[in-house]
Amino acid sequence: MVKSAIIGLDTKGHCDIIDITPKVEQQLVESDINSGIVTVFVTGSTAGLTTIEYEPGLISDLKEMWRRLVPENIPYNHDRAWGDGNGYSHIRASLLGASLVIPFNQKKLSLGTWQQIVVLCHDNRPRKRKVVVQLLGTS
Amino acid sequence: MVKSAIIGLDTKGHCDIIDITPKVEQQLVESDINSGIVTVFVTGSTAGLTTIEYEPGLISDLKEMWRRLVPENIPYNHDRAWGDGNGYSHIRASLLGASLVIPFNQKKLSLGTWQQIVVLCHDNRPRKRKVVVQLLGTS
Amino acid sequence: MVKSAIIGLDTKGHCDIIDITPKVEQQLVESDINSGIVTVFVTGSTAGLTTIEYEPGLISDLKEMWRRLVPENIPYNHDRAWGDGNGYSHIRASLLGASLVIPFNQKKLSLGTWQQIVVLCHDNRPRKRKVVVQLLGTS
Repeated sequence: MVKSAIIGLDTKGHCDIIDITPKVEQQLVESDINSGIVTVFVTGSTAGLTTIEYEPGLISDLKEMWRRLVPENIPYNHDRAWGDGNGYSHIRASLLGASLVIPFNQKKLSLGTWQQIVVLCHDNRPRKRKVVVQLLGTS
Repeated sequence: MVKSAIIGLDTKGHCDIIDITPKVEQQLVESDINSGIVTVFVTGSTAGLTTIEYEPGLISDLKEMWRRLVPENIPYNHDRAWGDGNGYSHIRASLLGASLVIPFNQKKLSLGTWQQIVVLCHDNRPRKRKVVVQLLGTS
Repeated sequence: MVKSAIIGLDTKGHCDIIDITPKVEQQLVESDINSGIVTVFVTGSTAGLTTIEYEPGLISDLKEMWRRLVPENIPYNHDRAWGDGNGYSHIRASLLGASLVIPFNQKKLSLGTWQQIVVLCHDNRPRKRKVVVQLLGTS
């Protein structure tokens, strides 16, 4: 069985990090699927997905990591060609990855207690985002 | 239902970045599966997969990011032991990851308009690559 | 069909890297599923998963990469708030990712000969880990 939904998000950009765990769990609860996997996928090329313990210290630490590894203020060829100033956003998104797959059994996601599903919006402006949540499995 | 195919690629190495989106879409079109996920997986330990807006500026920016984060010209214990000079290739591949999962519905991948599926060949020489494209879902 | 198992691991922390390929293959051999995907997912927020050629040189090179990209000895807000000194562990885990999906056909994983599935424990102390191995596919 397959069940698919789209979560709409208003993201602020600048490494906005949003916990979507409750929305993913809601899809699972409302479905007829009991065991399988949920694939979470963010459409677009300036956002990514991962898991983290969602607390303010780590959220700021993760933003700091991105500033260090893929800085905003170095030259990008994308910006020279297109002038939209978000070359760093695309590169961060490509390194992190747009998809995440989480198994579940008896309606329970395999997440740890301090492990949340987060969307990272790396763009340099607010965006309307679509996150696909697709359940695949058996009743 | 499961349908699996292997895409063969001749990669040049040195962070060769190849857009395989049309080949993945072709597998989907030719299958009897309408909704589900496609798992793309690159066999071997010196290549990886992600999504990016496939335009020349970003392709060069992504190569530059790899040069910065996992440089070619620092010492690697792999090279000391095996002498093949591609320690950096393996490390880049492990950081990026070998698999990518994309949901589709009614034969349409959940990719954005400017979001392509790319294989990154990090090796230091041309290679023959196998990329597995596996569809899993329902008609 | 869905078949799920939990692999228990005693990890040492400090970027302990453990080859779990034989355990994943064992789940596949013992199941009634012949073609499909295996989702490997590590529960908790200080560990991650990837593939690598499992040889001592690369294992030490990968540890060195983590020391360089996400150092232990820089300030983390997580540590200021919680005092457990493992801010770097969480950030490394979020960058690497907690899930890995590998297709298989006729009971054979699509891994290369020199490509193993590894769990990275980034924590700063020994841990008991749960790794979910879930098979999804057809007989």
